[in-house]
Amino acid sequence: MNQLGETALRYLDEAARFSTTEVGVTRFFCTDEHHALAQWLRMRMEEAGLACTLDHAGNLIGRREGPSPDSPTLILGSHQDSVRQGGKYDGMLGIILPIVCLADLAANGRALPYAVEVIAFGDEEGGRFSSTLVGSRAVAGRFDAKMLAATDATGMSMEAAMRAFGLAPDRIGEVARDPTKTIGFLEVHIEQGPVLESEGLPVGIVTAITGIERHQIRLLGRAGHAGTTPMAVRRDALAAASELVLFVERLCRESQRLVGVVGQLKIEPGSVNVIPASCDLTVELRSPDRDVRSRGRAAMYRELERIGTTRGVTAETTQTYEAEGIACSSRLSAELETAVKRCGLRPKRLFSGAGHDGLAMNDLTEVGMLFVRCRDGLSHHPDEAITAADADAAAQVLIVFLESFVP
Amino acid sequence: MNQLGETALRYLDEAARFSTTEVGVTRFFCTDEHHALAQWLRMRMEEAGLACTLDHAGNLIGRREGPSPDSPTLILGSHQDSVRQGGKYDGMLGIILPIVCLADLAANGRALPYAVEVIAFGDEEGGRFSSTLVGSRAVAGRFDAKMLAATDATGMSMEAAMRAFGLAPDRIGEVARDPTKTIGFLEVHIEQGPVLESEGLPVGIVTAITGIERHQIRLLGRAGHAGTTPMAVRRDALAAASELVLFVERLCRESQRLVGVVGQLKIEPGSVNVIPASCDLTVELRSPDRDVRSRGRAAMYRELERIGTTRGVTAETTQTYEAEGIACSSRLSAELETAVKRCGLRPKRLFSGAGHDGLAMNDLTEVGMLFVRCRDGLSHHPDEAITAADADAAAQVLIVFLESFVP
Repeated sequence: MNQLGETALRYLDEAARFSTTEVGVTRFFCTDEHHALAQWLRMRMEEAGLACTLDHAGNLIGRREGPSPDSPTLILGSHQDSVRQGGKYDGMLGIILPIVCLADLAANGRALPYAVEVIAFGDEEGGRFSSTLVGSRAVAGRFDAKMLAATDATGMSMEAAMRAFGLAPDRIGEVARDPTKTIGFLEVHIEQGPVLESEGLPVGIVTAITGIERHQIRLLGRAGHAGTTPMAVRRDALAAASELVLFVERLCRESQRLVGVVGQLKIEPGSVNVIPASCDLTVELRSPDRDVRSRGRAAMYRELERIGTTRGVTAETTQTYEAEGIACSSRLSAELETAVKRCGLRPKRLFSGAGHDGLAMNDLTEVGMLFVRCRDGLSHHPDEAITAADADAAAQVLIVFLESFVP
Repeated sequence: MNQLGETALRYLDEAARFSTTEVGVTRFFCTDEHHALAQWLRMRMEEAGLACTLDHAGNLIGRREGPSPDSPTLILGSHQDSVRQGGKYDGMLGIILPIVCLADLAANGRALPYAVEVIAFGDEEGGRFSSTLVGSRAVAGRFDAKMLAATDATGMSMEAAMRAFGLAPDRIGEVARDPTKTIGFLEVHIEQGPVLESEGLPVGIVTAITGIERHQIRLLGRAGHAGTTPMAVRRDALAAASELVLFVERLCRESQRLVGVVGQLKIEPGSVNVIPASCDLTVELRSPDRDVRSRGRAAMYRELERIGTTRGVTAETTQTYEAEGIACSSRLSAELETAVKRCGLRPKRLFSGAGHDGLAMNDLTEVGMLFVRCRDGLSHHPDEAITAADADAAAQVLIVFLESFVP
């Protein structure tokens, strides 16, 4: 019963050990944990008969050749990195499940008429450098070298971090794949939302992936003594930021097609008795609809202007990230639907409110996604959970897909 | 012209070098900077003919004996520590100016009919351990040993920090002075407010010191994926905190006798795409009127209750600090007024919206304070400034006071 699902969950538990935090999984790009995970993952890939390489974007690739050296390649995979104190399944499920399936095919001596790669992308969440999809952008040939200058909380640049990890960032260009030799990209991922759970289904087929944009905002007020500065003349950067936080929340609550969050916020100088002088925060906005997102951004800028004028606080804003939403491949989705039906499941199509590597891989090739039900729709959280039965259902669908797929 | 004032400012510039930050002065209790400053200060004290000791609360004491070993002692002084990125004058002026004046009296062979001590209190601002007046409380015999368990941002306890500094925290009790041998405590301090500047006066006589209370508040919401968690079901700890920040501001703006600030705020997990799960923040409230402060606190607790209920966010609150306001000594204030007049200045009496070591020293002895005008009423800021002329005026007032004072 659920043998492949049980195996996958056991591996996912092991993988979760490679974390900087005891609570939840915290594994960032080019860290010691990334390195250790890659070493462990290499063993799992090799057990599945895959030949391993680490590319210069920090992606670990396990390859199973096709019938000839010219066989086109279907890419499977997801990201190895997590958010701070995230869960065991976001990302890693999409690496482990294909490995388990390919190991099963190999054990049963089943050949496929194409080559397959499982890629563990080094960076998708962008938790360390506030920049996401580094791995999949590189594979898609769309990595922007300017991104190498991005710095982490300690001031270390991405370039320095990659070098320390043993990569050659000046060779990231070589990571790009040839679209003519690539069949498609298929990612298995937890849903991170409540739809499959509410419909009582273990898996779903993704129709589209949301667009995402991120802004880094610095509010500059003025420090002052918290006892002697009259309230009326204060230029409190945190009070200004608080207005913005609540505005973003209100804006998104009023729209069915826009969500947003202030996920990072730091104040200086940060003393109990000093008026905050500056506040650095991030705003993330998501919508499947580009216009809705644009209007949200414009409203946020207008509100920042108003807050600044009212409070004598200046705002510096930088858009640090944008990824347009994409539509998934109708061909891969149709093949997934066939496989789901052949496994005796109702094929449910749904939309992804989360960003995924497919956003970048869509520049290279067709993208398909299979969602797996997760408990309470919860993700990016230590309590993130899936069942072995659901993991097994996804594995069966993936095996049927792989065996029936004609390149 | 302004010779004592010039000397004082030169010393204050030198003292400001002992800082962990390039911008502004950051010098916390029992740090390397505290240690280096104390070594430098010992030289200044010895040049002024003072005998130096470091007590077990981290206070550096320079003593000038009176006519007999039994002579009662007048204590002068202020604190050596700063807020994060504070200014050069807050605290240090009240240490340096008495040293300069006592050096001048010694150079001119002037005796005083009592002993004098200049104390550089180790901790007043409480920037490291969120606990203030450690030095003056110890001298007043009111240090609470429970405070030793307080921890800094790295998790180091005050007790461990004091031991690492070479102190014996178990001997803090010995630091307490005998009230029958103490005449009074006089502190020179920058005003940190706009009153003297608006009245065109270099110095002012303080009538009372504000009461202060501080609260540590933890808001616990729930982390979640910022793209897939519907806005309506989020339990965003930062949004809850933002409501509290704006409430505290509104509450204080509506009162003439209450000021308050949220000076520290940290969120977890602090990822750009994760809903904030928890937020730790401080609230400080100040009022000369105890009832006003109590009503403010009660209103804040009610608002926290409302926010928590509305948002599904729980709040844990701890009052970490309270110092009742005090009235300054009528006798010392009258003597200061006489000295101010004899220096040809108009005696202005004013109230202190900031807390000072006098809050603690009042438990030991009578307290007097002399305020010195500061530019723009600004303090707790790198741009904090006074003029040599004003420092000199304060020095002249202090010398007249010391010479005319009869114990």
